[in-house]
Amino acid sequence: MLLSELADKLCGTLLGQDRDISGASTIEEAAPSEITFLANPKYKDKVLSSSAGAIITAEKLDTPAAQIIVGNAYLSFAHAVNLLYPEKQHAPGISPQAFVHPDAVVDETASIYPHVYVGQGARISRGSVIHPGCFIGDGASIGEDTTLHPNVVVYAGCSVGNACIIHAGTVIGSDGFGFVWDGSKHFKIPQKGIVIIGDHVEIGSNCTIDRAALTATRIGSDVKMDNLIQIGHNVTIGDHTIIVAQSGIAGSARIGKSVVLAAQSGVAGHISVGDGCTAAGRAGVASDLAAGKIVSGFPAMDHKQWLRAQNVYKDLPALLKRVRELERRLDGLDND
Amino acid sequence: MLLSELADKLCGTLLGQDRDISGASTIEEAAPSEITFLANPKYKDKVLSSSAGAIITAEKLDTPAAQIIVGNAYLSFAHAVNLLYPEKQHAPGISPQAFVHPDAVVDETASIYPHVYVGQGARISRGSVIHPGCFIGDGASIGEDTTLHPNVVVYAGCSVGNACIIHAGTVIGSDGFGFVWDGSKHFKIPQKGIVIIGDHVEIGSNCTIDRAALTATRIGSDVKMDNLIQIGHNVTIGDHTIIVAQSGIAGSARIGKSVVLAAQSGVAGHISVGDGCTAAGRAGVASDLAAGKIVSGFPAMDHKQWLRAQNVYKDLPALLKRVRELERRLDGLDND
Amino acid sequence: MLLSELADKLCGTLLGQDRDISGASTIEEAAPSEITFLANPKYKDKVLSSSAGAIITAEKLDTPAAQIIVGNAYLSFAHAVNLLYPEKQHAPGISPQAFVHPDAVVDETASIYPHVYVGQGARISRGSVIHPGCFIGDGASIGEDTTLHPNVVVYAGCSVGNACIIHAGTVIGSDGFGFVWDGSKHFKIPQKGIVIIGDHVEIGSNCTIDRAALTATRIGSDVKMDNLIQIGHNVTIGDHTIIVAQSGIAGSARIGKSVVLAAQSGVAGHISVGDGCTAAGRAGVASDLAAGKIVSGFPAMDHKQWLRAQNVYKDLPALLKRVRELERRLDGLDND
Repeated sequence: MLLSELADKLCGTLLGQDRDISGASTIEEAAPSEITFLANPKYKDKVLSSSAGAIITAEKLDTPAAQIIVGNAYLSFAHAVNLLYPEKQHAPGISPQAFVHPDAVVDETASIYPHVYVGQGARISRGSVIHPGCFIGDGASIGEDTTLHPNVVVYAGCSVGNACIIHAGTVIGSDGFGFVWDGSKHFKIPQKGIVIIGDHVEIGSNCTIDRAALTATRIGSDVKMDNLIQIGHNVTIGDHTIIVAQSGIAGSARIGKSVVLAAQSGVAGHISVGDGCTAAGRAGVASDLAAGKIVSGFPAMDHKQWLRAQNVYKDLPALLKRVRELERRLDGLDND
Repeated sequence: MLLSELADKLCGTLLGQDRDISGASTIEEAAPSEITFLANPKYKDKVLSSSAGAIITAEKLDTPAAQIIVGNAYLSFAHAVNLLYPEKQHAPGISPQAFVHPDAVVDETASIYPHVYVGQGARISRGSVIHPGCFIGDGASIGEDTTLHPNVVVYAGCSVGNACIIHAGTVIGSDGFGFVWDGSKHFKIPQKGIVIIGDHVEIGSNCTIDRAALTATRIGSDVKMDNLIQIGHNVTIGDHTIIVAQSGIAGSARIGKSVVLAAQSGVAGHISVGDGCTAAGRAGVASDLAAGKIVSGFPAMDHKQWLRAQNVYKDLPALLKRVRELERRLDGLDND
Repeated sequence: MLLSELADKLCGTLLGQDRDISGASTIEEAAPSEITFLANPKYKDKVLSSSAGAIITAEKLDTPAAQIIVGNAYLSFAHAVNLLYPEKQHAPGISPQAFVHPDAVVDETASIYPHVYVGQGARISRGSVIHPGCFIGDGASIGEDTTLHPNVVVYAGCSVGNACIIHAGTVIGSDGFGFVWDGSKHFKIPQKGIVIIGDHVEIGSNCTIDRAALTATRIGSDVKMDNLIQIGHNVTIGDHTIIVAQSGIAGSARIGKSVVLAAQSGVAGHISVGDGCTAAGRAGVASDLAAGKIVSGFPAMDHKQWLRAQNVYKDLPALLKRVRELERRLDGLDND
């Protein structure tokens, strides 16, 4: 693609000579035929010595390389990558090696790959792509333009919205974890609810999202989840929330909108996390959080408080020594 | 179902007018045609304002809603849900889209869904349901009335007992993690053992249970495991033990009966955890525990000790300040 | 196999009477027809009372049982197990129940099991075994003598080297986790890179390894990974590194050679971990580590420092009490 054409599509201004761009890469690895970007000022020196043929940037750079000046360099670069590497087109239709129940409804524009199972009464909407090995249970529904990567499992009755991306191996709608001791064994609390996932949701690989006991586990729209995340039954997650890898949310927790749960964090059962909260990596949220809180540690506390506590913690032996010295000095005074 | 019929089946006493009940729900969401329950007294006020058509409760409530009085409301409610929502019946037989080795033995009452693989010498017993995408390795065996949800993998030689439920994506019998440095690379310790799972075991989705190096990794009966749990090779787990999501048990650990390992906890290798112990959420058990211990933190310590330590930890900067003040005061005395 | 033959193959010296050995087991469970080993001197008493018919050991033992004397008992035992339990031979060829794209290249000695999907332009090399339910995306490549256990997913364009073992349910090449806020929603940063895995790599079950945004996520040769591990996009991992279960490495981290990341540990994004470092169980590495460091805790610190800090931590209430007592005594002095 010509740089001038790319600049047009990004509504940017081209500085320097037009040329053909074949791809996009990082500052370090971009070739003269490729474009890169500068979003973080700390990489300014690096970008000036890059071999890239062109740079997407918000501020004009003092370099002979061609530049496309835009308002948000990172966002425009993402658009550029999409323009330079078009998505694979999937042939519509149902593979003869798939199983689709006669009472399922599959839109004729959807792509059903080999070894897919679509159960009774399930519904696959326009433009969706169901990769090999996926399971769509009885009565489950998949929205429009949604992609299920290989081996995704959607249990009976659950629904995934429009324009979602679910990565390989993720399980949606397995039974919530509930038992009651009946005097001799754990009696299973039946899990008859469902999972409802909004639109524009992306879920990473090998996640697990449990169905509600009676009602619905709800994932809002534009929620983004990384890999290996556990969502317990009856949980609700607000729109735009981000959950990073290996985090877990226990049953019946309510997570607000635009929350960030960083990697390996956790939220205890029945907890309410307000809109816009951030839990730092490894935080374990064990009590309700008002909107906008930033917390760390386990049990999670105010992030700044944790930083200060952690700072003393790592030198605890020195503190103990100072207390011992105080005792010694005071003993000396007493003996005077 | 008529309330009177439900009350009979639960051996409970019906108070109020008989009516038809179509389903069960939570206190908040139950409609007049649905039944709910009161198990925790703190929801008493809530239940009195519920729209539910009937309430299962241990104590008579002062409400016009119909009530079924029982001994254990939560347990009876679980039974009621099972009565109101009968399990799906699976057609017996082997799908022509499944692969079953000619030397495998599949009971004629078992249901083998499309895209299942059953290896040489494997055995699937009476009434079991093997959902699409499952793999049953050579010589593996699945007991009676056991359900394997989609994409469950049971490696060669492993066995799952009767009346078990294994959720989607769980892997039983992958190789244990063992290597020995041979001077230039890690040499693999062959993992020739198996996994043996008892009866009435439920395992959540995307768990991993490794085969033993030489003998057997053993999961007792009535063990209940949540999602994304790791069980290392040679581990033994006693009957009735509960393991919550994202916990991990390292190789050769011995977990007693009726133990509870809460979410995101861990047990180190070769550790012995006595019967009836509880490890709180995030606990990391690094040394043997006698029966009945309740532990928290990492390395795990007595739960009450941890609570007290954690209480001081979060105010460590204040403690440091007090020590500084003591030093200042003592310096003042010395200078007197 | 005769003990004498086994001793020959292990280049060991047979002491005691020759006999037929049918298998290998642990010190506790070995039968008279089986062989065991002594690698850790602390099990010396135990091995002397074992029922095993023969013992592989580095030092001559005072027991009537036959012994094979070798230089490294654990390594020789691993070789013995391989000799006593030969690997299953897989019939070469493509199952008629598999899907292989006409433009894929599958070596005639490779085994492609039922319900496997091999995409356009993918390449499966000599001697490799692809178990049921695996997905090999367009243009992906699998090296020689590599085994993919059931339901492994290799996304388009990714490559796995020679002599690798990938356990069930592991996902290689799902999208890295990257979004940029566009003013109203999270805009997806396209993930157009790949994953490149070296030779002799073993990866446990249900792991997730994300593709790079633009370049490659790289796993070196002889890397050994346990189960349920998360590797973020753009990560590089050096040769011989060991990663234990449930650990996670965030995006763009660089892990050196021969590093050990113990169970449930984590490495933050963009961090560099030097060659030969060890992160103890649960360690959370949040800053760069020079080669050879041993760290613990979160944020990870020097292991010995952590041990000392942790030692004071668990008795923090006692420390607080001592400070209170000092304050009381000092108040008393002031009041004198």
